[in-house]
Amino acid sequence: MSWENNVRRVTPYVPGEQPKRKDIIKLNTNENPYPPAPAVQQVLREFSVDTLRKYPDPTVGALTKALSENYCVPEDQIFVGVGSDDVLAMSFMTFFHGDKPILFPDITYSFYDVWAEEFEIPYETKPLREDFTICRDDYMCENGGIVIPNPNAPTGIEARRDELEMIIASNPDSVVIIDEAYVDFGAETTLPLIEKYDNLLVVMTFSKSRSLAGSRIGFAMGSKKLIGYLQDVKYSFNSYTMDSVTSAIGCAALSDPKYFLETCEKIVETREWTKKELHALGFSFPDSRTNFIFAKHECWDAARLFEDLKEAGIYVRYFNKPRIDQYLRISIGTMEEMQQLVAFLQDYKQV
Amino acid sequence: MSWENNVRRVTPYVPGEQPKRKDIIKLNTNENPYPPAPAVQQVLREFSVDTLRKYPDPTVGALTKALSENYCVPEDQIFVGVGSDDVLAMSFMTFFHGDKPILFPDITYSFYDVWAEEFEIPYETKPLREDFTICRDDYMCENGGIVIPNPNAPTGIEARRDELEMIIASNPDSVVIIDEAYVDFGAETTLPLIEKYDNLLVVMTFSKSRSLAGSRIGFAMGSKKLIGYLQDVKYSFNSYTMDSVTSAIGCAALSDPKYFLETCEKIVETREWTKKELHALGFSFPDSRTNFIFAKHECWDAARLFEDLKEAGIYVRYFNKPRIDQYLRISIGTMEEMQQLVAFLQDYKQV
Repeated sequence: MSWENNVRRVTPYVPGEQPKRKDIIKLNTNENPYPPAPAVQQVLREFSVDTLRKYPDPTVGALTKALSENYCVPEDQIFVGVGSDDVLAMSFMTFFHGDKPILFPDITYSFYDVWAEEFEIPYETKPLREDFTICRDDYMCENGGIVIPNPNAPTGIEARRDELEMIIASNPDSVVIIDEAYVDFGAETTLPLIEKYDNLLVVMTFSKSRSLAGSRIGFAMGSKKLIGYLQDVKYSFNSYTMDSVTSAIGCAALSDPKYFLETCEKIVETREWTKKELHALGFSFPDSRTNFIFAKHECWDAARLFEDLKEAGIYVRYFNKPRIDQYLRISIGTMEEMQQLVAFLQDYKQV
Repeated sequence: MSWENNVRRVTPYVPGEQPKRKDIIKLNTNENPYPPAPAVQQVLREFSVDTLRKYPDPTVGALTKALSENYCVPEDQIFVGVGSDDVLAMSFMTFFHGDKPILFPDITYSFYDVWAEEFEIPYETKPLREDFTICRDDYMCENGGIVIPNPNAPTGIEARRDELEMIIASNPDSVVIIDEAYVDFGAETTLPLIEKYDNLLVVMTFSKSRSLAGSRIGFAMGSKKLIGYLQDVKYSFNSYTMDSVTSAIGCAALSDPKYFLETCEKIVETREWTKKELHALGFSFPDSRTNFIFAKHECWDAARLFEDLKEAGIYVRYFNKPRIDQYLRISIGTMEEMQQLVAFLQDYKQV
């Protein structure tokens, strides 16, 4: 016997590398290549430091109000967390507390099975079709909950909205989480459906489209009832998760919709340019609606290419997993960064 | 059947009120009345906002290094979280995963039973003695883990170090968490014991003594093995919990030990002054080693006094719970604030 017998043992999620080297092209964690909105800088310069001695607003009221105005969703239908990972972890804890297995695609965000293991939630993965699209009928069986990212990661593919709606409508006894981390890069949000289905939770993040991965801001929107349960579990975990500075940063980012749209557009343009170039170089990939491309070369081995790129100071993401071990996930950087990537690939040989 | 059948239902912790009114004397949430170290201001003014587009260091390396130097504890024996509530929640999840009940005092931090309920951990509370001291022998039975705050809250009483050591030494099969949120106001830390006992986890926070409740920084120190398990559970929950700005704020606060000590000393002085005044006014209280006093008046009803103080713009904390429903927990503010409290009480009458 030892205290170790009482320990929860888990195999943690491994995030993409955060190398300390400065001279690299970092296309491995889907970060935004552009800085956050200028108003964020102003917030940091003007923040009243003395107020930090006090606890933050536990309701994250100001940020919730700003989100409410931005998305036209009532404040009591919004939940704010420390990044969308925090929101998703809390949601798994809250809504997937039954005995039946929860469902998610076999190829998807690799944190879902980690949360399921952590919270001891039974789960089943549903294989994507050969072309990596989601098969709607797979989610029409008995289950304890459903989580689907839209667009999916790491494939970048957007699901058809009517198919997602059928999944949500056919599962009134399960909470369906649509993880829209990448939705702002040209996909259609399921957000309007929260008015119609009280079992739908839509999760979004400031990490990608709002250039604030370093600030850890995520949020979820859903029916008042759904958000109420989520708040209860959150308040039973930590009353004050969002620090005062971050909350102010979030408000600042939301205050500049023009900058937000322009940044997203630039990334979409760069993505479309990169698609053409990669295609010409012999890569194939699903049609991405995100800030990354999930690409496979007609002859080059992905693991070797991954290492060779790294050697050249270009970091992308490689998943050594069944069905996708010949793909690389390449985040969209600035046009200059993508040009450098393309230039490297034009000279690249694999013997 | 409905999706609500799969929901985890909890009764959340209720934190002390955070009133929006500005003209009040806020002595209800044990906040520090002094601002954070001046270096914190500088960090906010100089922070490179562009870096926020990138994910923070998942290991919170810089802050961990600063803590390591400050407390002379190796980096791999330190865990950093979003406030000590986050650290404690993660610790409950990680270390209290057995079938036997965990133990904690009946009068203590009111979040312990909330976490136990949230994570479905069986628990037993052990009654404090009549004088609110901890009875060591209560913790010598079979158990699945132990959590004791030292000094205890809301009593403010410091346990004898040799008694705590006996509890830790007698329970090699359980993790013993000593929650030292208030230790910097004149109590003795159990930190040196982590070298001797691999089942001891010492938890501290920046919220009280470092004037950073608004920033959410907590940390735990213990054996390498203990911290390893805690990290695994944390990385299975959220890879990046500490945002980049907060991490830099934490480092700045640690960089000024002189300011830290002076602030703590001022609060201790004010506390000792307040004790004398309250005593003269007919209050009795255990000898507090914290930044609050847990006081009971010889004739005034606590609930009424609480309301009357609030009416006068002085917020303290009242717990309507067995054994302590005639006590008020009064945080130590500035000398001026405590003088105003005392002046109010000198004129106070309860008929």
